[in-house]
Amino acid sequence: MGEHWDTSLRELALRALHAAQDDAPGLKPEALFVGNMLAGALSHQEHLGALIADFAGMRGIEAVTVEAAGASGGAALRQAVLAVASGQVSTALVVGVEKMTDRIGPGVTAAAATAADSDWEAAQGVTPTALAALLMRRYMHEHQVALKDFAGFSLNAHANAKTNPNAMFRNAITAEAYVKAGMVAEPVNMFDAAPEADGAAALIITAAPANGQARIRVAASAMATDTLAVHDRPDLLTFEAAQRSAEKAYRLAGVKASEVDVFELFDAFTVFAALSLEAAGFAERGRGWQLAAGDIGLTGRIPISTFGGLKARGNPGGATGVYQIAEVVLQLRGEAGPNQVKDARWGMAQSLGGAGATAVTHIFERAG
Amino acid sequence: MGEHWDTSLRELALRALHAAQDDAPGLKPEALFVGNMLAGALSHQEHLGALIADFAGMRGIEAVTVEAAGASGGAALRQAVLAVASGQVSTALVVGVEKMTDRIGPGVTAAAATAADSDWEAAQGVTPTALAALLMRRYMHEHQVALKDFAGFSLNAHANAKTNPNAMFRNAITAEAYVKAGMVAEPVNMFDAAPEADGAAALIITAAPANGQARIRVAASAMATDTLAVHDRPDLLTFEAAQRSAEKAYRLAGVKASEVDVFELFDAFTVFAALSLEAAGFAERGRGWQLAAGDIGLTGRIPISTFGGLKARGNPGGATGVYQIAEVVLQLRGEAGPNQVKDARWGMAQSLGGAGATAVTHIFERAG
Repeated sequence: MGEHWDTSLRELALRALHAAQDDAPGLKPEALFVGNMLAGALSHQEHLGALIADFAGMRGIEAVTVEAAGASGGAALRQAVLAVASGQVSTALVVGVEKMTDRIGPGVTAAAATAADSDWEAAQGVTPTALAALLMRRYMHEHQVALKDFAGFSLNAHANAKTNPNAMFRNAITAEAYVKAGMVAEPVNMFDAAPEADGAAALIITAAPANGQARIRVAASAMATDTLAVHDRPDLLTFEAAQRSAEKAYRLAGVKASEVDVFELFDAFTVFAALSLEAAGFAERGRGWQLAAGDIGLTGRIPISTFGGLKARGNPGGATGVYQIAEVVLQLRGEAGPNQVKDARWGMAQSLGGAGATAVTHIFERAG
Repeated sequence: MGEHWDTSLRELALRALHAAQDDAPGLKPEALFVGNMLAGALSHQEHLGALIADFAGMRGIEAVTVEAAGASGGAALRQAVLAVASGQVSTALVVGVEKMTDRIGPGVTAAAATAADSDWEAAQGVTPTALAALLMRRYMHEHQVALKDFAGFSLNAHANAKTNPNAMFRNAITAEAYVKAGMVAEPVNMFDAAPEADGAAALIITAAPANGQARIRVAASAMATDTLAVHDRPDLLTFEAAQRSAEKAYRLAGVKASEVDVFELFDAFTVFAALSLEAAGFAERGRGWQLAAGDIGLTGRIPISTFGGLKARGNPGGATGVYQIAEVVLQLRGEAGPNQVKDARWGMAQSLGGAGATAVTHIFERAG
């Protein structure tokens, strides 16, 4: 994660896939699901399924790209889950990959704005950060919250990233630095917004685990949408897709929010973290920001961004959702090292596309 | 199909979805799979799942974009088949949509070249048509075939499009006009290459059909890949992905090529038609071109391009695969009007991405 000027898109994907396969030797994948958002625009490369399948030594395998903006990585796992549940695919690979540096296409902001409504938002000059700024300003106004009240999300993310070798920013920050940070789109400042990044992460999902491989069970997989354009929503301050997919996931897994031990949410902006905590049932509407004060740390009531989150681990577009899931898996395996949440049994990952227009929620359980 | 300067991407998708839903009233879709290839580049719009779900009046539904270059439409149905087979989705919608006119991005040729290998093909100036030209020239050389021998593919496509109100080119052409046609990339001429187009088509797939709705059964769904870059293939003149996916589809459906009554193949170029007929077992290697002389008409041994194919119906990128499937469904329902293949019971649709790097093959059976 970070800026990999000397590594191509396909090489990033390859490294992640090989790491995943080394971790589960003997499994023969039958299908590859690629989570990607911007390769067509930034690398002039669509058709990543065939490209990566061949480059990673799996010539011939079924392979496809799955896109749902920032939720692409989560959506790719969702398709893999459906494939394995169908009985038509025994073992599937998921790779999320995004290459934002060394691009040959337009600027990253213009490309990222394709996640918003092109005709009614982006064409008017609205960027993803500007949309987040609208939501944050409304949140501050309606819920009587100050800028400094969001600091905890960013401080927690940076604190956790410090011990994550894959994180982009491994520096702790202070509340003082947070409130003095330069504005990106007021009131969203440099420490509210997650950085664009190059990155890739991979997962293997199988119906036929070998001995010792069935370490993590997919307990629930759920996806939902909301209006793409933010102005079409009856309530700007409810992430309805996140709410709907989380509720479905709880129902499928048979757990309540209070039973979730770790929650990798989509903190592309600090206000997204607050809204996601509310949507997933960890706080009442308008109270999500209060958790930033102490509940979200590794030993808190609901640990989030345990490896740095989007904010400090980095946000590589279509790869982000796969990073989130991989981090939950590490937590449930007890392999999170200094970032470990003690005795984590139930973990949840939620990816968002656009300003919450798509949400994919997965719940995982430690098996055995 | 054609050039719809006054219709936006979302409106094209909406019309197709509404037509499909009018055809199967009472089914409540739970998921939407969008086949699209170029909206990010040409319309600056990714995230089509959420966009179209909302615009088509299905706010909240699970929705995702599926991309595999020219095979995107077939791949979208493939994901819908997996979703329904998984038991997690009862009814799914598939819409293929592409908007190539009135674009705000780069030229269509540059965008379409993202289906090839960006680093090793497109960056060197190779376009999709140039790749087809390499294959066609090799085919002519190795199999001792003349340009005029490909004419039958184009004549058949145009003859069938004449009576298809959705076709882009409804004019019959002659063998004389074919050999005199202007070159696009020698030896590929104007009548060898399918035209880019705007278009959308939609399908509904369900596990719970109401009375009278279970008219067509998905007997097989199979997907495979080959090297993305053409120069990496051991044999330039074998479409291995097409072969592999067709063989798997025959096995799953329990039928042989000789039992297939109608075959909507991917005639983006006439040489693709010849290679696809060989890959799917209708001709020996090097003999596919011979079928153009009389076997591929509506009353021939293996009718292809029965509504005009990509060549004359038009080739709207990620929508094309869905058109192909919808046409097979019309044939099996006996609703193809003047384009009807008599007593069609088994139908096959095969979509290709790039120069055959991805292939998706579906076999359908008329039920009852």
